[in-house]
Amino acid sequence: MATIDLNSDVGESFGRWTLGDDTAMFRSVSSANLACGFHAGDPSVIRQTCREAVAAGVVIGAHVGYHDLAGFGRRFLDIDPIELADDVVYQIGALQALAAVEGGTVRYVKPHGGLYNAIVAHTRQAQAVVDAVRSVDPNLPILGLPGSEVLRLAEAAGLRAVTEAFADRAYNPDGTLVSRTLPGAVLKDPALVTEHVLRMATDSAVRTIDGSILKINAESICVHGDSPGAVSMAAAVRKALTAAGITTAAFA
Amino acid sequence: MATIDLNSDVGESFGRWTLGDDTAMFRSVSSANLACGFHAGDPSVIRQTCREAVAAGVVIGAHVGYHDLAGFGRRFLDIDPIELADDVVYQIGALQALAAVEGGTVRYVKPHGGLYNAIVAHTRQAQAVVDAVRSVDPNLPILGLPGSEVLRLAEAAGLRAVTEAFADRAYNPDGTLVSRTLPGAVLKDPALVTEHVLRMATDSAVRTIDGSILKINAESICVHGDSPGAVSMAAAVRKALTAAGITTAAFA
Amino acid sequence: MATIDLNSDVGESFGRWTLGDDTAMFRSVSSANLACGFHAGDPSVIRQTCREAVAAGVVIGAHVGYHDLAGFGRRFLDIDPIELADDVVYQIGALQALAAVEGGTVRYVKPHGGLYNAIVAHTRQAQAVVDAVRSVDPNLPILGLPGSEVLRLAEAAGLRAVTEAFADRAYNPDGTLVSRTLPGAVLKDPALVTEHVLRMATDSAVRTIDGSILKINAESICVHGDSPGAVSMAAAVRKALTAAGITTAAFA
Amino acid sequence: MATIDLNSDVGESFGRWTLGDDTAMFRSVSSANLACGFHAGDPSVIRQTCREAVAAGVVIGAHVGYHDLAGFGRRFLDIDPIELADDVVYQIGALQALAAVEGGTVRYVKPHGGLYNAIVAHTRQAQAVVDAVRSVDPNLPILGLPGSEVLRLAEAAGLRAVTEAFADRAYNPDGTLVSRTLPGAVLKDPALVTEHVLRMATDSAVRTIDGSILKINAESICVHGDSPGAVSMAAAVRKALTAAGITTAAFA
Repeated sequence: MATIDLNSDVGESFGRWTLGDDTAMFRSVSSANLACGFHAGDPSVIRQTCREAVAAGVVIGAHVGYHDLAGFGRRFLDIDPIELADDVVYQIGALQALAAVEGGTVRYVKPHGGLYNAIVAHTRQAQAVVDAVRSVDPNLPILGLPGSEVLRLAEAAGLRAVTEAFADRAYNPDGTLVSRTLPGAVLKDPALVTEHVLRMATDSAVRTIDGSILKINAESICVHGDSPGAVSMAAAVRKALTAAGITTAAFA
Repeated sequence: MATIDLNSDVGESFGRWTLGDDTAMFRSVSSANLACGFHAGDPSVIRQTCREAVAAGVVIGAHVGYHDLAGFGRRFLDIDPIELADDVVYQIGALQALAAVEGGTVRYVKPHGGLYNAIVAHTRQAQAVVDAVRSVDPNLPILGLPGSEVLRLAEAAGLRAVTEAFADRAYNPDGTLVSRTLPGAVLKDPALVTEHVLRMATDSAVRTIDGSILKINAESICVHGDSPGAVSMAAAVRKALTAAGITTAAFA
Repeated sequence: MATIDLNSDVGESFGRWTLGDDTAMFRSVSSANLACGFHAGDPSVIRQTCREAVAAGVVIGAHVGYHDLAGFGRRFLDIDPIELADDVVYQIGALQALAAVEGGTVRYVKPHGGLYNAIVAHTRQAQAVVDAVRSVDPNLPILGLPGSEVLRLAEAAGLRAVTEAFADRAYNPDGTLVSRTLPGAVLKDPALVTEHVLRMATDSAVRTIDGSILKINAESICVHGDSPGAVSMAAAVRKALTAAGITTAAFA
Repeated sequence: MATIDLNSDVGESFGRWTLGDDTAMFRSVSSANLACGFHAGDPSVIRQTCREAVAAGVVIGAHVGYHDLAGFGRRFLDIDPIELADDVVYQIGALQALAAVEGGTVRYVKPHGGLYNAIVAHTRQAQAVVDAVRSVDPNLPILGLPGSEVLRLAEAAGLRAVTEAFADRAYNPDGTLVSRTLPGAVLKDPALVTEHVLRMATDSAVRTIDGSILKINAESICVHGDSPGAVSMAAAVRKALTAAGITTAAFA
């Protein structure tokens, strides 16, 4: 594999509150998961971030989430699937319009936070997301966890299902992520992160927390943008990929 | 004039709360000002209302407003024009997506409530609305008050400016509406309302509160949908127009 | 038993949207579960409802809920218990101030909707509610379902735990409510509802959906206020209790 | 004058978003204007900030604002005075409960942002704030701009009106603040700021932007907490006051 996508969450500021340094992240990533106003992002933040993504040649995706600003969309919400689908259509449409006035286009959908986690296994919510995306545009890929219910249903519905891995997360031997409540769940050493990413990009594999090598197939690698050191970590990953002869390019 | 448009506010329910009887109103009006979630309307309400509008052959417009659910968008908000424009783009885009999945299209924009009133005279907010609409689609008409700043700026920007009159509001001799704080501001007698509307549609005129006849040029007439008796009033207006040989048809 | 409490949800209007007829309900009930702004109720609605409750001699309770206006607080939210406790304290405090300026006092707490249902079994959220109530005032009783986790924990914490039954809901033989998705779950015939309530008040029992008699111990009976016919149903219940020599009086 | 109060805005984080370093500010100020959830602050942020204020011996005030999270309460909102008063009561009550569970007490009220600016001159909104504060507790002082309508009305209503000056803002010769849109409006040089504050505290005066000396009577001085360098600026002010023999102590 000579090409990999790097994706990151952006547009997560809101009103008076700033989160992350999207401008700096755009120098390293190829795909931007853009908040749509339900868990983060207000219309002006979203539009400004679209403008910068377009200027940087970064592909825009809709980072759709639960309507829960206070919880940043990270808490499971037992929403009716019909209503969830409508929420997803609303968010994609809002982002499409803001992207379009800046010369951009929404090219994929990535569920956010609590919704992302829920639809790894929650069939009805996963189907709602798939239905929503397909109803808006059947050519929009969905980005998610390998083996997740949402990707299975996306493929069944004729959508492109794109798998991702996480640059800074430790993996269990079964391919699930090590829980954030456990030590070692999040990799903080840039050397370890770049080794992790290079193995993903060159061998389609990760070294798991017990030291074994596990095959994972990821078309995209998620680098986080909202932690201290995020920008330099993303830059280190990008640089290591380039040094290894791997092109960073959007999947969409 | 043998044709007139009747427009009404719809999609103003929210979650557990119901407002108006949109299904019934769709039997009388030709244009639907659809709430976009900022002053009223949630994604499921909006989608359901789009579905019914499409089924009834009623044209969909974006009823964009201030982001003020508690105040139903009726209170002036001194928002920065740049942010207002972005809010308007966001709302139109969200509605476009929900309308599209139901086979509909957003064909015009009507500002709502406090925003509608503000941009009769507030040049910077009026320009923001015009900029937003033009940036989304320069073929979208804006519906507003005759003589208003927003319609003047819309025309200057090359947009179609569509004037409206109010079926149940009394007019001052200078063409402004009688303040709701004064007696007689709102017409409640169906006979008076239909007489008012027929004069608008046939003579491009209204009888003002002092009894004089004033020429007003309205391509559309707004009938309210959220008061008791709204449905029967709208039906009476539609029937009177038909009886007078005037076709009710969307302007867009 | 010669005395029973009747409680009802009130203050659930919001801004432009009206729900229920609280004024009319106050003629029948003795306790008012007052929305606190998180699932319904805005400060002006809450204050106006407190004023009417005080005037009618109805006791005010805090109807605390998830912060989810779009979902009316009916959807389970996997909120952190610490944050839930803080949300509950916030809501009680806001209501206390609005009640106080109208000469009233908050005398109990009843969790609402999705939270009510969750803490029948969800220990950590139940404990959070108990902790919040005790931290505000250890003399505030909590109103809930007999056998629920929240009432068990309330008693363990030294709070008064008050049990309630539902005037218009059918019961399973094990004392749980018949799911709303099943036929016969909600009683609509006033004769059946009053018979149900009289058995609760006089025999501490209900006739379950299979016809058997089940003992339940309820200090309060919940009558719904937001359905068509709610006002007349509550009046019928009150009248039947009076005719049977049972006094309707607040438990708090 | 040997004593002055230093106040600062705190508790302005919200959910995932952090603003300011309240813990550090508490080492310098004597009064904390605590956000109440309408323009900033969620219940957990508020409670945590109350805990730290209590631990630091800093007096808690209610920083009440417009219900406008997206605008951080900085935009004028033409809200009905009755509704504004109810919003203020709600906010004070919520803060009172959260402060109380942490062993604190709300000792004053300071309007925030757009509301603060509006009620310098907007009589009806100013009266609403005064009415709300008095209805909750007639012993609560209101902190505001010298010569403002809200302080005039507070005194007329028998409330204590406390005047404040701004440590880092330039003054016009008539005592108004230099508009933020003009150069020199905000002082950034710590030496100038401390000189400014010392003149306020020792001479009840400021050097205005044209170099003249103007008498102003301020019982409290506002130091901003949300700008880069805010913490060190506040520390410098506190240190300069101490060096000049002036005690920093809460007015309430």
